[in-house]
Amino acid sequence: MELTGFSPEQLDVREAVAKICNKFPDEYWARHDESGVYPHELHAALAKDGWIGIALPEDLGGAGLGISEATMMLQTISQSGAGIAGAQTIHANVYATQPVAKFAKETQRKSMLPRLISGNDLRQALSTGLETLKLKTRAIRDGDFYNISGQKIWISSAQVASKMILLARTTPLQEVKNSSEGLSLFFIDFDRHAPGLELKQIKKMGGRAVDANEVFFDNYRVPADTLIGEEGQGFKIVLHGMNAERCLLAGEALGLGFAALEKASKYAQERIVFGRPIGQNQGIQHPLAAAYMNLEAAKLATYHAARVYDLSGKDPNLTSHAVGVACNSAKYLAAEAAFTACERSVSLSNA
Amino acid sequence: MELTGFSPEQLDVREAVAKICNKFPDEYWARHDESGVYPHELHAALAKDGWIGIALPEDLGGAGLGISEATMMLQTISQSGAGIAGAQTIHANVYATQPVAKFAKETQRKSMLPRLISGNDLRQALSTGLETLKLKTRAIRDGDFYNISGQKIWISSAQVASKMILLARTTPLQEVKNSSEGLSLFFIDFDRHAPGLELKQIKKMGGRAVDANEVFFDNYRVPADTLIGEEGQGFKIVLHGMNAERCLLAGEALGLGFAALEKASKYAQERIVFGRPIGQNQGIQHPLAAAYMNLEAAKLATYHAARVYDLSGKDPNLTSHAVGVACNSAKYLAAEAAFTACERSVSLSNA
Amino acid sequence: MELTGFSPEQLDVREAVAKICNKFPDEYWARHDESGVYPHELHAALAKDGWIGIALPEDLGGAGLGISEATMMLQTISQSGAGIAGAQTIHANVYATQPVAKFAKETQRKSMLPRLISGNDLRQALSTGLETLKLKTRAIRDGDFYNISGQKIWISSAQVASKMILLARTTPLQEVKNSSEGLSLFFIDFDRHAPGLELKQIKKMGGRAVDANEVFFDNYRVPADTLIGEEGQGFKIVLHGMNAERCLLAGEALGLGFAALEKASKYAQERIVFGRPIGQNQGIQHPLAAAYMNLEAAKLATYHAARVYDLSGKDPNLTSHAVGVACNSAKYLAAEAAFTACERSVSLSNA
Amino acid sequence: MELTGFSPEQLDVREAVAKICNKFPDEYWARHDESGVYPHELHAALAKDGWIGIALPEDLGGAGLGISEATMMLQTISQSGAGIAGAQTIHANVYATQPVAKFAKETQRKSMLPRLISGNDLRQALSTGLETLKLKTRAIRDGDFYNISGQKIWISSAQVASKMILLARTTPLQEVKNSSEGLSLFFIDFDRHAPGLELKQIKKMGGRAVDANEVFFDNYRVPADTLIGEEGQGFKIVLHGMNAERCLLAGEALGLGFAALEKASKYAQERIVFGRPIGQNQGIQHPLAAAYMNLEAAKLATYHAARVYDLSGKDPNLTSHAVGVACNSAKYLAAEAAFTACERSVSLSNA
Repeated sequence: MELTGFSPEQLDVREAVAKICNKFPDEYWARHDESGVYPHELHAALAKDGWIGIALPEDLGGAGLGISEATMMLQTISQSGAGIAGAQTIHANVYATQPVAKFAKETQRKSMLPRLISGNDLRQALSTGLETLKLKTRAIRDGDFYNISGQKIWISSAQVASKMILLARTTPLQEVKNSSEGLSLFFIDFDRHAPGLELKQIKKMGGRAVDANEVFFDNYRVPADTLIGEEGQGFKIVLHGMNAERCLLAGEALGLGFAALEKASKYAQERIVFGRPIGQNQGIQHPLAAAYMNLEAAKLATYHAARVYDLSGKDPNLTSHAVGVACNSAKYLAAEAAFTACERSVSLSNA
Repeated sequence: MELTGFSPEQLDVREAVAKICNKFPDEYWARHDESGVYPHELHAALAKDGWIGIALPEDLGGAGLGISEATMMLQTISQSGAGIAGAQTIHANVYATQPVAKFAKETQRKSMLPRLISGNDLRQALSTGLETLKLKTRAIRDGDFYNISGQKIWISSAQVASKMILLARTTPLQEVKNSSEGLSLFFIDFDRHAPGLELKQIKKMGGRAVDANEVFFDNYRVPADTLIGEEGQGFKIVLHGMNAERCLLAGEALGLGFAALEKASKYAQERIVFGRPIGQNQGIQHPLAAAYMNLEAAKLATYHAARVYDLSGKDPNLTSHAVGVACNSAKYLAAEAAFTACERSVSLSNA
Repeated sequence: MELTGFSPEQLDVREAVAKICNKFPDEYWARHDESGVYPHELHAALAKDGWIGIALPEDLGGAGLGISEATMMLQTISQSGAGIAGAQTIHANVYATQPVAKFAKETQRKSMLPRLISGNDLRQALSTGLETLKLKTRAIRDGDFYNISGQKIWISSAQVASKMILLARTTPLQEVKNSSEGLSLFFIDFDRHAPGLELKQIKKMGGRAVDANEVFFDNYRVPADTLIGEEGQGFKIVLHGMNAERCLLAGEALGLGFAALEKASKYAQERIVFGRPIGQNQGIQHPLAAAYMNLEAAKLATYHAARVYDLSGKDPNLTSHAVGVACNSAKYLAAEAAFTACERSVSLSNA
Repeated sequence: MELTGFSPEQLDVREAVAKICNKFPDEYWARHDESGVYPHELHAALAKDGWIGIALPEDLGGAGLGISEATMMLQTISQSGAGIAGAQTIHANVYATQPVAKFAKETQRKSMLPRLISGNDLRQALSTGLETLKLKTRAIRDGDFYNISGQKIWISSAQVASKMILLARTTPLQEVKNSSEGLSLFFIDFDRHAPGLELKQIKKMGGRAVDANEVFFDNYRVPADTLIGEEGQGFKIVLHGMNAERCLLAGEALGLGFAALEKASKYAQERIVFGRPIGQNQGIQHPLAAAYMNLEAAKLATYHAARVYDLSGKDPNLTSHAVGVACNSAKYLAAEAAFTACERSVSLSNA
């Protein structure tokens, strides 16, 4: 990867995070992928040095940096060989906490976030769903509590998480004018031993170090003061974190792509067929070179988007439409470029 | 095209150049493409406002800006509907004059460049050739003159140019150690009526407003003081302009691509089939959206490369390898993205 | 192109048609593309040897062969260097006459088709339109005549045609239950000097030997006995020829693709850069080889579709859905494969 | 998949083999993929009904059919959900036995092949290597025996096989004029408990029901009468089976592709997002339709190649070059089309 154009902060993040990740070699990840055991050690190492709070305010124990730096952090983790599983150990902690930091009451912020940042409250699961406005999970007020009922799918790390950021419908769909109303956001304890909460783990073909789950709530009881912001405002609050997540995901994809090309390029130099390294053949060179150039372009698009995201709210000329276009494009471009890079790299191993 | 991230200078260039180009509507270009008549009027209009010297030093009458701004200028010309033909009216004047400005003697600089910048010396042709080190055009010293003999192909605007920047071999290939030696650079009068110079125009399928030619030199006589820099140093001198040209070409490709997508998007909104605009179909939307995102990424890569080029020689950490990678990648990415954008846009016109 | 698997009839067609087309070298087509003059000589040469009636019944002077052979004929014409313009000289005569041969009254068949086959009635234009069921051209009965009014676009060879097969609405859209009703088919004289008929030629960027036009009818008067089949049955009748046309178009595309690859492959062997033919580089070989394989696959799909089309109506197990899938797929695959082959071949000429 | 154009024999094979494979549902294959246990039951079921000898001569207990039918058999197995693992249970038995049937002595044929066909001699591994002519495994004559030494990689099903077809060098490379000489073919017992034979299983990410291995020979002793054909003729003999294998592999790829598209198409009809099946969106339809058409074209190319292969040696006009082009193209086209079909189908599951 070319480094020209990155800020000193980004380069510092890259160096420091790489140093941590290098302690977790490919064998570590191969082993965890096979066993399905959560990579607690990486989570702890990142928490210890304060990386979980990279983009959270300093008054909460965070580093007060932006998504530009957080994206670099997640790319570096992914690129180290930890892949998406490694990134997932802190991915949600970085972006899904953004709306909490912004919209929660002071007492909530102080009680909720520092423990996440320090790694004491363990990882955390988020759940919105593809068709967010139609989500069927209900939260029904009952005195000082809400009772949660409903089903969620593709919830990551639910087997080990102690907290969940949950979007649930507090006013039924038929009672709201607009389907974006009536949703509320909660930051709740995720207690697998409490009544009303059941998990069913989903088998996966890759990224198995971090579990994926179906989660079933059946009158799962949570205190009323886990509500973040106003009741009914959950959708607006959650939107706040979406563009940030797109940048992070783009960075993680970039990491995969660059790691793949690095291995492929090394293999092409070492693998001898018909008396010379296969990397001397244009049939090997050209597809890899094109994949590399596209990945570099996707990298520029990703960090452009992160910069734009970090400027939003500060630069009055920056429309939210422009931010959305930049972040969505980055996610698309990085995913496509990374997929191509990985596919071509893997194909090489047949040569 | 998204404008976030451009510098104020770039945005000013864009606005001013667009204002000039808008006086040359699509009909102008369609007419010149059919007739093959050179677009003298655009060249004159750009010269009048000083745009030819955008990246040449102020002491010569240039604007002293960089390739970052020149790339924006050429993109704007191309994007206006003038296309590659329009860009070619000043393309070579911008980049092929860079080594002259840098390596010519003071008297040469002063006598050669201001007339080009002002538009008094008309357009100018350049010739290097694909396999530069093997080029066969000879320049043989004869007292205060050189006699040029040899053949060049794909020389643009030779039918109207008054000057040529010429690379020729002054020491035969068999007498140099290294094939990159023995080449020399000349800035010569290009006189179609003088003995020893003949042209043969090449038929083209597009971009016909600017002629392409085979040029035949047969003891064409030029004064010895048309030599730029040292005899035998021509190759090194010429290399200086190559990365700049790559940026300009990338910008021109971007212009084509964005122009095509704009027309396609308008057509998709206006063309009604089966009772509604075809643009409401995902089969129309998705390929155009993907083309747009790739073009935006290529745009970021192009202006990143131009910035890197402008920094080269100033930032000690910037290797010439990194500059080359950036500029070559930009040219590749912009050409690919523009081709796809144009192809998809043209295909749309069948719907 | 690999020939294994073709029938003796197909191979005979290929040989005979190639012999005719070889009299029309690339220069002939370059000249006509530039001048826009119709290739009367090719049309006459094909008519003289009876090729226009290749797929029409023997009792009309046709050869009684099928679309399997007609597709080979059109591929051979296109592949000879005549391209789409050459194919268009008889394309419509081959497929748009199919419904006439099938649905016209005996007197009509005998008076209409033999003159077309012999080349005495010159070429012929067809017009249906993309959104056929909504077509607005009206034919209003007036005693022994119909008065035609309306506008058609993209009508080929209207500047030289003497006949037109016309679909027009005889019952207004608002008076029919189903929009596929109320359309009727006519086989009319196309008389540019008669009142009520005007043409406007459309400028094209390629295939210019055959003109494209807008045609305006304003109470253009035609005898009632030019109606083919029942009034109101036009849509069903026209559908009969559509799958045939798809096969022919696929064949024409194949011709373009194979011709391009042949030229590219020759160029790759002859063009020397860096001391050896560029065709020795995998960067040149692999894209051409892939294009060739895809073109061969599209060829198999095309002649499979033609065979299926020729079997339809004969094999009771063959559903019309299967015929449609085969013919539509062939058109798609051949067009895509040919476009890629042409694009890669043209790109090569920059090397 | 469209069935028009297949022979009655091919359709019979398809029906009968599908009937067997349907007894092995997706759950069977998911379980074996996870456990890595060899699918003995499928191998036995296919052997019981005589399918292993589909393309072997009737005098040996085979069915005497050709590669056209064997390809259909392997496509059907793969398409049933058994995938490549399922196909691998008999893949090598079908094609690697072809040269044995042709070149072995009568006594060898009779003693070697019937037991394989009946399933009594269990599966069988083959080993040639990518760079066949450079293969380093040696077989050194020692009285009535050969001693085998060397290392092979990617040997499938070696954990369960009882026989191996082995190519080994009997004359050292430096003693032959041409590197294709000096290789010999053996049909040997593969006894994991005998001295001089060791295995190391390779971990795989898919197709895990069939093991892959490194095999180490160190003076592994085999009787001299395991030699097939003349000593030194092994390379020529082995080539005989290569084009057959290409057809089989193409068929297996087709099976994967069609199975994927079938599941994707079903999912697209059932999965409801934003109130309607996602399959109603062109963004879902078009990529799947294009993948389907390309798969159909690859299918035609595959069965064309198989037909050509079966004709080779019978049709004097059929050059071995044409056979090679057809079989290699089929393998390429089917692999590409299947990969695209699978990738698009899997991507869908995110929608």
